[in-house]
Amino acid sequence: MTHTISLLVENHQGVLSRISGLFSGRAYNLESFTSGPTTDPTISRITLVCNGDAQIIEQIKKQLNKLIDIIEVIELTTVPTVDRELALVKVAAKPGQRAEIIQITDVFKAQVMDVGSESIVIEITGSPEKIDDFVSLLQEFTIIELARSGLVSLARGKKQ
Amino acid sequence: MTHTISLLVENHQGVLSRISGLFSGRAYNLESFTSGPTTDPTISRITLVCNGDAQIIEQIKKQLNKLIDIIEVIELTTVPTVDRELALVKVAAKPGQRAEIIQITDVFKAQVMDVGSESIVIEITGSPEKIDDFVSLLQEFTIIELARSGLVSLARGKKQ
Repeated sequence: MTHTISLLVENHQGVLSRISGLFSGRAYNLESFTSGPTTDPTISRITLVCNGDAQIIEQIKKQLNKLIDIIEVIELTTVPTVDRELALVKVAAKPGQRAEIIQITDVFKAQVMDVGSESIVIEITGSPEKIDDFVSLLQEFTIIELARSGLVSLARGKKQ
Repeated sequence: MTHTISLLVENHQGVLSRISGLFSGRAYNLESFTSGPTTDPTISRITLVCNGDAQIIEQIKKQLNKLIDIIEVIELTTVPTVDRELALVKVAAKPGQRAEIIQITDVFKAQVMDVGSESIVIEITGSPEKIDDFVSLLQEFTIIELARSGLVSLARGKKQ
């Protein structure tokens, strides 16, 4: 089962290393991991998605709660959430292929960010599933590079 | 100085921990860190932004290149790039405040994702600076929660 965990952490040295260390050495796969600033410059929010059985995730959550740099641990798996992801896709595009790629981009409400002589960079935002669909559709062309943000998720309603 | 580094890594156990371990124990601040899937399910792309002097970053890049799980290390600091970030912002909004918040959202071409009785969740995509501006404008209301993806960046042109 896939679990989404949101963490508020203090920006101390090595905090990322301590968190990711809890996952290594276990049969636990981190699917995505994002860490960005909050309104308080001393605090970051981390959203991580991992795969594994419920018992191990409970252990990891307990250990996360014990880490001194961690302010808050919220599991978002079982509550209603807003789930979004950003991706940049660089697709090989000879002049004759551009129109078709731009058409697919429009259908997905994605945006062309850069057009070069042999490639196009497209930005897409949406649910991870929408991005999967977009990327798999573009695979009939050649995807040169793909950078995905990983899942960003907040609970719906006032406060989880 | 701020450095942006893009990594292609094999999804082996503990790879995140080994990478973040290189930064801990140094006077080096990781500002943002994103890790997401690529078209190859065994490989992830990590984009990290860090702050510090050029000499230490050179050391870290050398050590990253030595890690067996790392396929590619690209510094994006000095090349033309497409830089984007995604943020979800939950703002406290009594019914009388909604119109004004939605107006600001429209100006920034952001999107309302959820409206609750006391809060609104907004999605915004753009350069990190645009997101900073949006968030600071919304601080005249109360920001309940903020989740940012961290920087996602690709070099412009065919291949870096």
